[in-house]
Amino acid sequence: IAFFMNWNGYGKSSSAADKVVNEIRAKGGKAVPNYDSVEDGEKLVKTALDAFGRIGTVIFFLFSDIIHRIHLRGSFLVTRAAWNHMKNQKFGRIIMTSSAAGIYGNFGQANYSAAKLGLLGLSNTIAIEGRKYNIHSNTIAPTAGSRLTQTVMPQDLVDAFKPEYVAPLVLWLCHESCQENGGLFEVGAGWIGKLRWERSLGAIVRGKSHPMTPEAVRENWEKVCDFDNASKPRTIQESISVLNDALSQIESEGNVSMNATY
Amino acid sequence: IAFFMNWNGYGKSSSAADKVVNEIRAKGGKAVPNYDSVEDGEKLVKTALDAFGRIGTVIFFLFSDIIHRIHLRGSFLVTRAAWNHMKNQKFGRIIMTSSAAGIYGNFGQANYSAAKLGLLGLSNTIAIEGRKYNIHSNTIAPTAGSRLTQTVMPQDLVDAFKPEYVAPLVLWLCHESCQENGGLFEVGAGWIGKLRWERSLGAIVRGKSHPMTPEAVRENWEKVCDFDNASKPRTIQESISVLNDALSQIESEGNVSMNATY
Ligand SMILES: NC(=O)c1ccc[n+]([C@@H]2O[C@H](COP(=O)([O-])OP(=O)(O)OC[C@H]3O[C@@H](n4cnc5c(N)ncnc54)[C@H](O)[C@@H]3O)[C@@H](O)[C@H]2O)c1
Ligand SMILES: NC(=O)c1ccc[n+]([C@@H]2O[C@H](COP(=O)([O-])OP(=O)(O)OC[C@H]3O[C@@H](n4cnc5c(N)ncnc54)[C@H](O)[C@@H]3O)[C@@H](O)[C@H]2O)c1
Repeated sequence: IAFFMNWNGYGKSSSAADKVVNEIRAKGGKAVPNYDSVEDGEKLVKTALDAFGRIGTVIFFLFSDIIHRIHLRGSFLVTRAAWNHMKNQKFGRIIMTSSAAGIYGNFGQANYSAAKLGLLGLSNTIAIEGRKYNIHSNTIAPTAGSRLTQTVMPQDLVDAFKPEYVAPLVLWLCHESCQENGGLFEVGAGWIGKLRWERSLGAIVRGKSHPMTPEAVRENWEKVCDFDNASKPRTIQESISVLNDALSQIESEGNVSMNATY
Repeated sequence: IAFFMNWNGYGKSSSAADKVVNEIRAKGGKAVPNYDSVEDGEKLVKTALDAFGRIGTVIFFLFSDIIHRIHLRGSFLVTRAAWNHMKNQKFGRIIMTSSAAGIYGNFGQANYSAAKLGLLGLSNTIAIEGRKYNIHSNTIAPTAGSRLTQTVMPQDLVDAFKPEYVAPLVLWLCHESCQENGGLFEVGAGWIGKLRWERSLGAIVRGKSHPMTPEAVRENWEKVCDFDNASKPRTIQESISVLNDALSQIESEGNVSMNATY
Protein backbone atom coordinates (compact mmCIF):
# COMPACT_ATOMS: atom_id res chain seq x y z
CA ILE A 1 0.00 0.00 0.00
CA ALA A 2 2.65 2.44 1.05
CA PHE A 3 4.47 1.66 -2.17
CA PHE A 4 1.64 3.02 -4.21
CA MET A 5 1.22 6.12 -2.14
CA ASN A 6 4.84 6.86 -2.69
CA TRP A 7 4.20 7.32 -6.37
CA ASN A 8 1.73 9.78 -5.16
CA GLY A 9 4.03 11.91 -3.05
CA TYR A 10 6.73 11.78 -5.64
CA GLY A 11 5.30 11.29 -9.05
CA LYS A 12 1.94 13.02 -8.66
CA SER A 13 0.39 10.01 -10.28
CA SER A 14 -3.08 10.50 -8.87
CA SER A 15 -4.38 7.36 -10.55
CA ALA A 16 -2.00 5.23 -8.46
CA ALA A 17 -3.22 6.86 -5.25
CA ASP A 18 -6.84 6.54 -6.30
CA LYS A 19 -6.31 2.90 -7.04
CA VAL A 20 -5.00 2.21 -3.52
CA VAL A 21 -7.68 4.31 -1.90
CA ASN A 22 -10.36 2.46 -3.85
CA GLU A 23 -8.88 -0.88 -2.86
CA ILE A 24 -8.95 0.11 0.79
CA ARG A 25 -12.51 1.35 0.51
CA ALA A 26 -13.60 -1.81 -1.27
CA LYS A 27 -12.32 -3.75 1.73
CA GLY A 28 -14.41 -1.63 4.08
CA GLY A 29 -11.61 0.71 5.13
CA LYS A 30 -11.43 4.48 5.06
CA ALA A 31 -8.85 6.35 3.01
CA VAL A 32 -8.11 9.85 1.81
CA PRO A 33 -6.04 10.38 -1.29
CA ASN A 34 -3.58 13.23 -1.50
CA TYR A 35 -2.12 14.54 -4.73
CA ASP A 36 0.42 17.11 -3.55
CA SER A 37 4.14 16.87 -3.91
CA VAL A 38 6.32 17.38 -0.84
CA GLU A 39 6.94 20.93 -1.95
CA ASP A 40 3.31 21.64 -1.14
CA GLY A 41 4.13 21.19 2.54
CA GLU A 42 1.17 23.01 4.05
CA LYS A 43 -1.49 21.07 2.19
CA LEU A 44 0.31 17.82 2.76
CA VAL A 45 0.61 18.32 6.50
CA LYS A 46 -3.03 19.35 6.73
CA THR A 47 -4.18 16.33 4.79
CA ALA A 48 -2.03 14.06 6.93
CA LEU A 49 -3.26 15.65 10.15
CA ASP A 50 -6.90 15.58 9.11
CA ALA A 51 -6.48 11.94 8.24
CA PHE A 52 -4.63 11.08 11.44
CA GLY A 53 -7.26 12.69 13.58
CA ARG A 54 -10.04 10.64 12.12
CA ILE A 55 -8.77 7.28 11.08
CA GLY A 56 -6.54 4.48 12.14
CA THR A 57 -4.12 1.96 10.89
CA VAL A 58 -4.40 2.18 7.15
CA ILE A 59 -4.07 5.90 6.77
CA PHE A 60 -1.41 5.99 9.43
CA PHE A 61 0.37 3.71 7.02
CA LEU A 62 -0.39 5.60 3.90
CA PHE A 63 0.96 8.80 5.27
CA SER A 64 4.05 7.40 6.88
CA ASP A 65 6.13 8.36 3.92
CA ILE A 66 4.81 11.87 3.96
CA ILE A 67 5.62 12.44 7.64
CA HIS A 68 9.11 11.14 7.08
CA ARG A 69 9.62 13.18 3.97
CA ILE A 70 8.67 16.44 5.60
CA HIS A 71 10.15 16.07 9.06
CA LEU A 72 13.19 13.89 8.63
CA ARG A 73 14.12 14.03 4.99
CA GLY A 74 13.13 17.68 4.70
CA SER A 75 15.39 18.64 7.62
CA PHE A 76 18.16 16.59 6.12
CA LEU A 77 17.88 18.15 2.69
CA VAL A 78 17.74 21.70 3.98
CA THR A 79 20.74 21.12 6.25
CA ARG A 80 22.67 19.57 3.41
CA ALA A 81 21.87 22.49 1.16
CA ALA A 82 23.08 24.98 3.80
CA TRP A 83 26.17 22.99 4.80
CA ASN A 84 28.80 24.23 2.39
CA HIS A 85 27.70 27.79 2.85
CA MET A 86 28.05 27.47 6.62
CA LYS A 87 31.38 25.74 6.26
CA ASN A 88 32.73 28.52 4.08
CA GLN A 89 31.66 31.24 6.47
CA LYS A 90 32.88 29.21 9.45
CA PHE A 91 29.62 29.78 11.24
CA GLY A 92 26.39 27.88 11.39
CA ARG A 93 23.63 27.08 13.85
CA ILE A 94 21.21 24.25 13.15
CA ILE A 95 18.15 23.57 15.29
CA MET A 96 16.27 20.33 14.79
CA THR A 97 12.73 20.18 16.08
CA SER A 98 12.15 16.83 17.68
CA SER A 99 9.28 15.93 20.00
CA ALA A 100 8.56 14.35 23.36
CA ALA A 101 6.56 11.84 21.30
CA GLY A 102 9.86 10.58 19.90
CA ILE A 103 11.87 10.83 23.10
CA TYR A 104 9.35 8.91 25.21
CA GLY A 105 6.98 7.41 22.66
CA ASN A 106 3.32 8.38 22.38
CA PHE A 107 0.27 6.28 21.67
CA GLY A 108 -0.84 6.42 18.05
CA GLN A 109 2.26 8.25 16.83
CA ALA A 110 4.62 5.51 15.66
CA ASN A 111 5.57 7.26 12.44
CA TYR A 112 5.89 10.65 13.98
CA SER A 113 7.96 9.31 16.88
CA ALA A 114 10.32 7.61 14.48
CA ALA A 115 10.78 10.65 12.27
CA LYS A 116 11.20 12.98 15.24
CA LEU A 117 13.78 10.90 17.09
CA GLY A 118 15.50 10.36 13.77
CA LEU A 119 16.11 14.11 13.79
CA LEU A 120 18.02 13.76 17.04
CA GLY A 121 20.19 11.08 15.45
CA LEU A 122 20.82 13.42 12.54
CA SER A 123 21.68 16.29 14.87
CA ASN A 124 24.02 14.07 16.91
CA THR A 125 26.14 13.37 13.85
CA ILE A 126 25.93 16.87 12.39
CA ALA A 127 27.11 18.28 15.72
CA ILE A 128 30.27 16.19 15.37
CA GLU A 129 30.82 16.96 11.72
CA GLY A 130 30.23 20.68 12.16
CA ARG A 131 32.26 21.33 15.31
CA LYS A 132 35.49 22.30 13.64
CA TYR A 133 33.70 24.75 11.34
CA ASN A 134 31.84 26.42 14.22
CA ILE A 135 28.65 24.79 12.95
CA HIS A 136 26.59 23.72 15.96
CA SER A 137 23.53 21.55 15.90
CA ASN A 138 21.04 21.29 18.74
CA THR A 139 17.65 19.66 19.08
CA ILE A 140 14.55 20.96 20.82
CA ALA A 141 11.41 19.12 21.84
CA PRO A 142 8.88 21.94 22.20
CA THR A 143 5.36 22.03 23.53
CA ALA A 144 3.29 24.91 22.22
CA GLY A 145 -0.14 25.75 20.96
CA SER A 146 0.05 25.93 17.17
CA ARG A 147 -1.82 25.00 14.04
CA LEU A 148 -0.38 21.55 14.54
CA THR A 149 -1.41 21.05 18.15
CA GLN A 150 -4.69 23.00 18.23
CA THR A 151 -6.32 19.99 16.63
CA VAL A 152 -5.34 17.77 19.58
CA MET A 153 -4.80 20.11 22.57
CA PRO A 154 -7.61 21.71 24.63
CA GLN A 155 -7.96 25.42 23.85
CA ASP A 156 -6.82 26.61 27.29
CA LEU A 157 -3.56 24.75 26.86
CA VAL A 158 -3.13 26.08 23.33
CA ASP A 159 -3.48 29.56 24.85
CA ALA A 160 -1.20 28.90 27.83
CA PHE A 161 1.63 27.22 25.93
CA LYS A 162 2.56 30.10 23.69
CA PRO A 163 5.11 29.73 20.91
CA GLU A 164 6.73 32.83 22.46
CA TYR A 165 7.81 30.54 25.30
CA VAL A 166 9.81 28.42 22.87
CA ALA A 167 11.24 30.85 20.36
CA PRO A 168 13.74 32.62 22.68
CA LEU A 169 15.51 29.31 23.28
CA VAL A 170 15.92 28.92 19.54
CA LEU A 171 17.26 32.45 19.29
CA TRP A 172 19.79 31.80 22.04
CA LEU A 173 20.91 28.52 20.45
CA CYS A 174 21.39 30.35 17.16
CA HIS A 175 23.52 33.06 18.71
CA GLU A 176 27.21 33.17 17.86
CA SER A 177 28.12 33.37 21.54
CA CYS A 178 26.25 30.13 22.30
CA GLN A 179 28.72 27.24 22.48
CA GLU A 180 26.13 24.53 23.07
CA ASN A 181 26.46 21.74 20.49
CA GLY A 182 24.78 18.35 20.20
CA GLY A 183 22.32 19.13 22.99
CA LEU A 184 18.70 18.08 23.43
CA PHE A 185 16.25 20.36 25.22
CA GLU A 186 12.64 20.08 26.26
CA VAL A 187 10.98 23.46 26.25
CA GLY A 188 7.55 24.94 26.87
CA ALA A 189 5.59 27.37 29.04
CA GLY A 190 8.79 29.29 29.80
CA TRP A 191 10.64 26.27 31.21
CA ILE A 192 13.71 24.65 29.62
CA GLY A 193 15.35 21.36 30.62
CA LYS A 194 18.27 19.49 29.08
CA LEU A 195 18.42 15.76 28.38
CA ARG A 196 21.29 13.35 28.13
CA TRP A 197 21.89 9.59 28.19
CA GLU A 198 22.44 7.68 31.36
CA ARG A 199 23.91 4.19 30.98
CA SER A 200 24.03 1.43 33.57
CA LEU A 201 27.40 -0.12 34.38
CA GLY A 202 25.82 -3.24 32.97
CA ALA A 203 27.06 -6.79 33.18
CA ILE A 204 29.46 -9.15 31.46
CA VAL A 205 27.45 -12.27 30.83
CA ARG A 206 30.07 -14.70 29.58
CA GLY A 207 33.46 -16.03 30.61
CA LYS A 208 36.55 -16.84 28.62
CA SER A 209 35.42 -20.41 28.27
CA HIS A 210 31.75 -19.95 29.07
CA PRO A 211 29.66 -19.05 26.07
CA MET A 212 27.13 -16.26 26.28
CA THR A 213 23.71 -17.86 26.66
CA PRO A 214 20.19 -16.45 26.99
CA GLU A 215 20.11 -17.98 30.47
CA ALA A 216 23.24 -16.04 31.46
CA VAL A 217 21.60 -12.88 30.18
CA ARG A 218 18.47 -13.59 32.22
CA GLU A 219 20.47 -14.34 35.37
CA ASN A 220 22.31 -11.03 35.07
CA TRP A 221 19.27 -9.00 34.06
CA GLU A 222 18.94 -7.12 37.33
CA LYS A 223 22.53 -6.01 37.05
CA VAL A 224 22.13 -5.00 33.41
CA CYS A 225 19.24 -2.75 34.42
CA ASP A 226 20.74 -1.37 37.63
CA PHE A 227 21.41 2.36 37.32
CA ASP A 228 23.48 2.69 40.49
CA ASN A 229 26.79 4.34 39.60
CA ALA A 230 25.55 4.83 36.06
CA SER A 231 27.76 6.64 33.56
CA LYS A 232 26.76 9.50 31.27
CA PRO A 233 28.38 8.53 28.00
CA ARG A 234 28.55 11.22 25.36
CA THR A 235 30.38 9.69 22.42
CA ILE A 236 30.52 6.51 20.40
CA GLN A 237 34.15 6.22 21.54
CA GLU A 238 32.94 5.74 25.11
CA SER A 239 30.70 3.03 23.80
CA ILE A 240 33.59 1.21 22.13
CA SER A 241 35.83 1.65 25.15
CA VAL A 242 33.45 -0.11 27.52
CA LEU A 243 33.39 -3.04 25.08
CA ASN A 244 37.16 -3.15 24.91
CA ASP A 245 37.31 -3.10 28.71
CA ALA A 246 34.89 -5.99 28.83
CA LEU A 247 37.01 -7.97 26.36
CA SER A 248 40.20 -7.46 28.39
CA GLN A 249 38.43 -8.33 31.58
CA ILE A 250 37.09 -11.56 30.12
CA GLU A 251 40.49 -12.47 28.71
CA SER A 252 42.37 -11.72 31.92
CA GLU A 253 39.98 -13.54 34.17
CA GLY A 254 40.55 -16.87 32.49
CA ASN A 255 37.92 -19.30 33.61
CA VAL A 256 35.31 -17.27 35.38
CA SER A 257 31.82 -18.21 36.35
CA MET A 258 29.08 -17.67 33.84
CA ASN A 259 27.67 -15.03 36.16
CA ALA A 260 30.79 -12.91 36.17
CA THR A 261 29.85 -9.24 36.12
CA TYR A 262 31.58 -5.91 36.36
CA ILE B 1 18.90 14.10 -7.04
CA ALA B 2 17.48 11.96 -4.30
CA PHE B 3 14.12 12.26 -6.02
CA PHE B 4 15.39 10.48 -9.06
CA MET B 5 17.06 7.75 -7.12
CA ASN B 6 13.77 7.08 -5.48
CA TRP B 7 12.26 6.09 -8.77
CA ASN B 8 15.09 3.74 -8.88
CA GLY B 9 14.51 2.06 -5.54
CA TYR B 10 10.84 1.91 -6.15
CA GLY B 11 10.08 1.75 -9.79
CA LYS B 12 13.17 -0.03 -11.11
CA SER B 13 13.41 2.66 -13.74
CA SER B 14 17.08 2.24 -14.48
CA SER B 15 17.06 5.04 -17.02
CA ALA B 16 16.13 7.55 -14.32
CA ALA B 17 19.05 6.40 -12.16
CA ASP B 18 21.43 6.44 -15.09
CA LYS B 19 20.35 9.94 -15.93
CA VAL B 20 21.21 11.22 -12.44
CA VAL B 21 24.45 9.30 -12.32
CA ASN B 22 25.46 10.73 -15.67
CA GLU B 23 24.58 14.23 -14.53
CA ILE B 24 26.76 13.82 -11.45
CA ARG B 25 29.62 12.42 -13.51
CA ALA B 26 29.33 15.22 -16.04
CA LYS B 27 29.82 17.64 -13.15
CA GLY B 28 32.98 15.85 -12.11
CA GLY B 29 31.40 13.80 -9.32
CA LYS B 30 31.42 10.08 -8.73
CA ALA B 31 28.25 8.03 -8.70
CA VAL B 32 27.19 4.41 -8.73
CA PRO B 33 23.77 3.50 -10.08
CA ASN B 34 21.75 0.74 -8.44
CA TYR B 35 18.82 -0.95 -10.09
CA ASP B 36 17.44 -3.13 -7.34
CA SER B 37 14.16 -2.72 -5.55
CA VAL B 38 14.17 -2.59 -1.75
CA GLU B 39 13.18 -6.25 -1.76
CA ASP B 40 16.63 -7.01 -3.09
CA GLY B 41 18.03 -5.99 0.27
CA GLU B 42 21.42 -7.72 0.06
CA LYS B 43 22.51 -6.17 -3.22
CA LEU B 44 21.18 -2.80 -2.20
CA VAL B 45 23.04 -2.73 1.09
CA LYS B 46 26.20 -3.89 -0.62
CA THR B 47 25.96 -1.22 -3.28
CA ALA B 48 25.30 1.40 -0.66
CA LEU B 49 28.19 0.24 1.50
CA ASP B 50 30.59 -0.01 -1.41
CA ALA B 51 29.63 3.48 -2.40
CA PHE B 52 29.85 4.85 1.13
CA GLY B 53 33.28 3.45 1.59
CA ARG B 54 34.66 5.22 -1.40
CA ILE B 55 32.89 8.46 -1.96
CA GLY B 56 31.51 11.43 -0.19
CA THR B 57 28.67 13.82 -0.14
CA VAL B 58 26.82 13.13 -3.32
CA ILE B 59 26.47 9.40 -2.96
CA PHE B 60 25.80 9.80 0.71
CA PHE B 61 22.90 11.82 -0.55
CA LEU B 62 21.82 9.50 -3.26
CA PHE B 63 21.60 6.58 -0.94
CA SER B 64 19.94 8.39 1.91
CA ASP B 65 16.58 7.17 0.77
CA ILE B 66 17.82 3.65 0.52
CA ILE B 67 19.24 3.60 4.04
CA HIS B 68 16.00 4.97 5.38
CA ARG B 69 13.94 2.56 3.37
CA ILE B 70 15.77 -0.49 4.59
CA HIS B 71 16.44 0.37 8.19
CA LEU B 72 13.61 2.59 9.26
CA ARG B 73 10.79 2.03 6.82
CA GLY B 74 11.59 -1.66 6.47
CA SER B 75 11.38 -2.17 10.24
CA PHE B 76 8.18 -0.20 10.29
CA LEU B 77 6.57 -2.19 7.51
CA VAL B 78 7.52 -5.55 8.93
CA THR B 79 6.27 -4.58 12.40
CA ARG B 80 3.03 -3.34 10.94
CA ALA B 81 2.56 -6.54 9.01
CA ALA B 82 3.10 -8.63 12.14
CA TRP B 83 1.04 -6.43 14.45
CA ASN B 84 -2.46 -7.86 14.08
CA HIS B 85 -1.16 -11.37 14.28
CA MET B 86 0.65 -10.56 17.54
CA LYS B 87 -2.41 -8.77 18.88
CA ASN B 88 -4.64 -11.75 18.18
CA GLN B 89 -2.31 -14.18 19.87
CA LYS B 90 -1.75 -11.75 22.75
CA PHE B 91 1.97 -12.23 22.48
CA GLY B 92 4.66 -10.44 20.59
CA ARG B 93 8.29 -9.47 20.95
CA ILE B 94 9.83 -6.83 18.69
CA ILE B 95 13.53 -6.02 18.65
CA MET B 96 14.69 -2.93 16.81
CA THR B 97 18.34 -2.75 15.86
CA SER B 98 19.60 0.77 16.46
CA SER B 99 23.23 1.81 16.67
CA ALA B 100 25.64 3.77 18.84
CA ALA B 101 26.05 5.93 15.73
CA GLY B 102 22.48 7.12 16.27
CA ILE B 103 22.61 7.35 20.05
CA TYR B 104 25.82 9.43 20.15
CA GLY B 105 26.32 10.50 16.56
CA ASN B 106 29.22 9.38 14.40
CA PHE B 107 31.28 11.25 11.85
CA GLY B 108 30.19 10.63 8.27
CA GLN B 109 27.02 8.79 9.22
CA ALA B 110 24.31 11.45 9.24
CA ASN B 111 21.79 9.34 7.33
CA TYR B 112 22.50 6.19 9.18
CA SER B 113 22.35 7.95 12.57
CA ALA B 114 18.99 9.43 11.70
CA ALA B 115 17.49 6.15 10.51
CA LYS B 116 18.89 4.23 13.47
CA LEU B 117 17.71 6.62 16.17
CA GLY B 118 14.39 6.79 14.35
CA LEU B 119 14.06 3.10 15.15
CA LEU B 120 14.25 3.93 18.85
CA GLY B 121 11.45 6.47 18.41
CA LEU B 122 9.41 3.81 16.65
CA SER B 123 10.11 1.29 19.40
CA ASN B 124 9.22 3.83 22.11
CA THR B 125 5.73 4.22 20.69
CA ILE B 126 5.22 0.57 19.79
CA ALA B 127 6.14 -0.38 23.36
CA ILE B 128 3.25 1.78 24.59
CA GLU B 129 0.78 0.59 21.98
CA GLY B 130 1.66 -3.07 22.45
CA ARG B 131 1.76 -3.26 26.24
CA LYS B 132 -1.85 -4.29 26.80
CA TYR B 133 -1.54 -7.07 24.23
CA ASN B 134 1.67 -8.44 25.75
CA ILE B 135 3.56 -7.11 22.74
CA HIS B 136 6.89 -5.76 23.92
CA SER B 137 9.32 -3.72 21.90
CA ASN B 138 12.96 -3.22 22.83
CA THR B 139 15.91 -1.70 21.03
CA ILE B 140 19.49 -2.89 20.88
CA ALA B 141 22.61 -1.05 19.76
CA PRO B 142 25.02 -3.91 18.97
CA THR B 143 28.67 -3.96 18.11
CA ALA B 144 29.77 -7.06 16.24
CA GLY B 145 31.93 -8.18 13.39
CA SER B 146 29.67 -8.81 10.41
CA ARG B 147 29.45 -8.36 6.66
CA LEU B 148 28.41 -4.81 7.47
CA THR B 149 31.27 -3.91 9.79
CA GLN B 150 34.10 -5.95 8.29
CA THR B 151 34.46 -3.22 5.70
CA VAL B 152 35.19 -0.62 8.38
CA MET B 153 36.51 -2.54 11.43
CA PRO B 154 40.03 -3.98 11.76
CA GLN B 155 40.03 -7.77 11.35
CA ASP B 156 41.05 -8.48 14.97
CA LEU B 157 38.01 -6.56 16.22
CA VAL B 158 35.76 -8.31 13.71
CA ASP B 159 37.01 -11.58 15.19
CA ALA B 160 36.78 -10.47 18.82
CA PHE B 161 33.30 -8.95 18.63
CA LYS B 162 31.40 -12.04 17.66
CA PRO B 163 27.72 -11.93 16.74
CA GLU B 164 27.34 -14.75 19.29
CA TYR B 165 27.95 -12.10 21.96
CA VAL B 166 24.86 -10.21 20.82
CA ALA B 167 22.35 -12.88 19.84
CA PRO B 168 21.63 -14.25 23.36
CA LEU B 169 20.37 -10.82 24.43
CA VAL B 170 17.94 -10.89 21.53
CA LEU B 171 16.81 -14.37 22.51
CA TRP B 172 16.21 -13.29 26.10
CA LEU B 173 14.29 -10.18 25.04
CA CYS B 174 12.13 -12.39 22.81
CA HIS B 175 11.31 -14.81 25.60
CA GLU B 176 7.78 -14.88 26.97
CA SER B 177 9.09 -14.59 30.52
CA CYS B 178 10.95 -11.36 29.72
CA GLN B 179 8.90 -8.37 30.89
CA GLU B 180 11.28 -5.72 29.61
CA ASN B 181 9.46 -3.26 27.34
CA GLY B 182 10.56 0.01 25.77
CA GLY B 183 14.18 -0.51 26.78
CA LEU B 184 17.39 0.44 24.99
CA PHE B 185 20.51 -1.69 25.38
CA GLU B 186 24.07 -1.42 24.19
CA VAL B 187 25.56 -4.85 23.66
CA GLY B 188 28.81 -6.36 22.42
CA ALA B 189 31.75 -8.58 23.41
CA GLY B 190 29.59 -10.26 26.05
CA TRP B 191 28.71 -7.04 27.87
CA ILE B 192 25.23 -5.51 28.09
CA GLY B 193 24.30 -2.07 29.41
CA LYS B 194 20.95 -0.28 29.56
CA LEU B 195 20.30 3.34 28.62
CA ARG B 196 17.69 5.82 29.74
CA TRP B 197 17.08 9.57 29.67
CA GLU B 198 18.31 11.87 32.34
CA ARG B 199 16.77 15.33 32.43
CA SER B 200 18.00 18.38 34.30
CA LEU B 201 15.61 20.14 36.65
CA GLY B 202 16.01 23.01 34.23
CA ALA B 203 14.96 26.60 34.66
CA ILE B 204 11.95 28.83 34.31
CA VAL B 205 13.14 31.76 32.30
CA ARG B 206 10.18 34.12 32.43
CA GLY B 207 7.91 35.70 35.01
CA LYS B 208 4.17 36.38 35.00
CA SER B 209 4.80 39.85 33.65
CA HIS B 210 8.29 39.33 32.32
CA PRO B 211 8.40 38.03 28.79
CA MET B 212 10.72 35.17 27.89
CA THR B 213 13.71 36.67 26.11
CA PRO B 214 16.88 35.18 24.59
CA GLU B 215 18.81 37.13 27.23
CA ALA B 216 16.85 35.44 30.02
CA VAL B 217 17.62 32.07 28.43
CA ARG B 218 21.32 32.92 28.31
CA GLU B 219 21.37 34.11 31.90
CA ASN B 220 19.81 30.86 33.07
CA TRP B 221 21.85 28.61 30.81
CA GLU B 222 24.00 27.13 33.52
CA LYS B 223 20.92 26.12 35.45
CA VAL B 224 19.26 24.67 32.33
CA CYS B 225 22.30 22.46 31.83
CA ASP B 226 22.89 21.54 35.48
CA PHE B 227 22.29 17.81 36.05
CA ASP B 228 22.35 17.95 39.83
CA ASN B 229 19.17 16.32 41.14
CA ALA B 230 18.24 15.36 37.60
CA SER B 231 15.10 13.34 36.98
CA LYS B 232 14.78 10.20 34.88
CA PRO B 233 11.56 10.85 32.99
CA ARG B 234 10.03 7.84 31.24
CA THR B 235 6.83 9.09 29.66
CA ILE B 236 5.47 11.99 27.70
CA GLN B 237 3.08 12.56 30.61
CA GLU B 238 6.05 13.42 32.81
CA SER B 239 7.09 15.88 30.17
CA ILE B 240 3.69 17.57 30.19
CA SER B 241 3.52 17.60 33.96
CA VAL B 242 6.77 19.54 34.38
CA LEU B 243 5.36 22.13 31.98
CA ASN B 244 2.12 22.37 33.95
CA ASP B 245 4.10 22.79 37.16
CA ALA B 246 6.09 25.57 35.55
CA LEU B 247 2.88 27.31 34.46
CA SER B 248 1.39 27.17 37.98
CA GLN B 249 4.60 28.38 39.51
CA ILE B 250 4.79 31.34 37.18
CA GLU B 251 1.14 32.19 37.79
CA SER B 252 1.39 31.92 41.58
CA GLU B 253 4.56 33.94 41.89
CA GLY B 254 3.02 37.03 40.46
CA ASN B 255 5.72 39.52 39.58
CA VAL B 256 8.98 37.65 39.83
CA SER B 257 12.32 38.57 38.52
CA MET B 258 13.21 37.61 34.99
CA ASN B 259 15.81 35.27 36.45
CA ALA B 260 13.34 33.26 38.49
CA THR B 261 14.25 29.60 38.39
CA TYR B 262 13.04 26.38 39.94
N1 LIG C 1 3.56 22.46 18.85
C1 LIG C 1 4.02 21.47 19.59
O1 LIG C 1 3.59 21.27 20.75
C2 LIG C 1 5.07 20.58 19.05
C3 LIG C 1 5.44 19.47 19.82
C4 LIG C 1 6.47 18.66 19.36
C5 LIG C 1 7.09 18.97 18.17
N2 LIG C 1 6.68 20.03 17.42
C6 LIG C 1 7.37 20.31 16.17
O2 LIG C 1 7.56 21.70 16.03
C7 LIG C 1 7.63 22.03 14.65
C8 LIG C 1 6.73 23.20 14.36
O3 LIG C 1 5.39 22.77 14.51
P1 LIG C 1 4.20 23.72 15.01
O4 LIG C 1 3.59 23.07 16.18
O5 LIG C 1 4.68 25.12 15.13
O6 LIG C 1 3.15 23.53 13.82
P2 LIG C 1 2.70 24.57 12.68
O7 LIG C 1 1.78 23.78 11.82
O8 LIG C 1 2.18 25.82 13.28
O9 LIG C 1 4.04 24.89 11.91
C9 LIG C 1 4.56 24.02 10.95
C10 LIG C 1 5.20 24.88 9.88
O10 LIG C 1 5.88 24.05 8.94
C11 LIG C 1 5.62 24.51 7.63
N3 LIG C 1 5.78 23.38 6.69
C12 LIG C 1 5.03 22.28 6.60
N4 LIG C 1 5.47 21.48 5.62
C13 LIG C 1 6.53 22.08 5.05
C14 LIG C 1 7.41 21.77 3.98
N5 LIG C 1 7.30 20.64 3.31
N6 LIG C 1 8.40 22.63 3.69
C15 LIG C 1 8.52 23.78 4.38
N7 LIG C 1 7.71 24.13 5.42
C16 LIG C 1 6.73 23.31 5.73
C17 LIG C 1 4.22 25.03 7.70
O11 LIG C 1 4.01 25.95 6.68
C18 LIG C 1 4.15 25.66 9.09
O12 LIG C 1 4.57 27.00 9.05
C19 LIG C 1 7.28 20.75 13.90
O13 LIG C 1 8.46 20.13 13.50
C20 LIG C 1 6.58 19.91 14.95
O14 LIG C 1 6.70 18.52 14.68
C21 LIG C 1 5.68 20.84 17.85
N1 LIG D 1 27.57 -5.01 13.33
C1 LIG D 1 27.58 -3.93 14.05
O1 LIG D 1 28.58 -3.60 14.75
C2 LIG D 1 26.38 -3.07 14.09
C3 LIG D 1 26.45 -1.85 14.79
C4 LIG D 1 25.31 -1.07 14.91
C5 LIG D 1 24.15 -1.52 14.32
N2 LIG D 1 24.11 -2.68 13.59
C6 LIG D 1 22.85 -3.08 12.99
O2 LIG D 1 22.66 -4.46 13.16
C7 LIG D 1 21.84 -4.95 12.10
C8 LIG D 1 22.47 -6.18 11.50
O3 LIG D 1 23.65 -5.79 10.82
P1 LIG D 1 24.95 -6.71 10.69
O4 LIG D 1 26.07 -5.94 11.23
O5 LIG D 1 24.65 -8.05 11.24
O6 LIG D 1 25.15 -6.72 9.10
P2 LIG D 1 24.93 -7.89 8.04
O7 LIG D 1 25.16 -7.25 6.74
O8 LIG D 1 25.73 -9.09 8.41
O9 LIG D 1 23.40 -8.27 8.21
C9 LIG D 1 22.38 -7.50 7.59
C10 LIG D 1 21.30 -8.46 7.18
O10 LIG D 1 20.17 -7.71 6.70
C11 LIG D 1 19.68 -8.35 5.54
N3 LIG D 1 18.99 -7.35 4.71
C12 LIG D 1 19.51 -6.28 4.10
N4 LIG D 1 18.56 -5.60 3.44
C13 LIG D 1 17.40 -6.22 3.64
C14 LIG D 1 16.06 -5.99 3.21
N5 LIG D 1 15.73 -4.96 2.45
N6 LIG D 1 15.11 -6.84 3.62
C15 LIG D 1 15.45 -7.90 4.41
N7 LIG D 1 16.70 -8.16 4.84
C16 LIG D 1 17.67 -7.34 4.45
C17 LIG D 1 20.89 -8.92 4.85
O11 LIG D 1 20.52 -9.99 4.02
C18 LIG D 1 21.74 -9.39 6.05
O12 LIG D 1 21.41 -10.70 6.39
C19 LIG D 1 21.68 -3.78 11.13
O13 LIG D 1 20.44 -3.18 11.39
C20 LIG D 1 22.81 -2.86 11.50
O14 LIG D 1 22.52 -1.52 11.17
C21 LIG D 1 25.21 -3.46 13.48
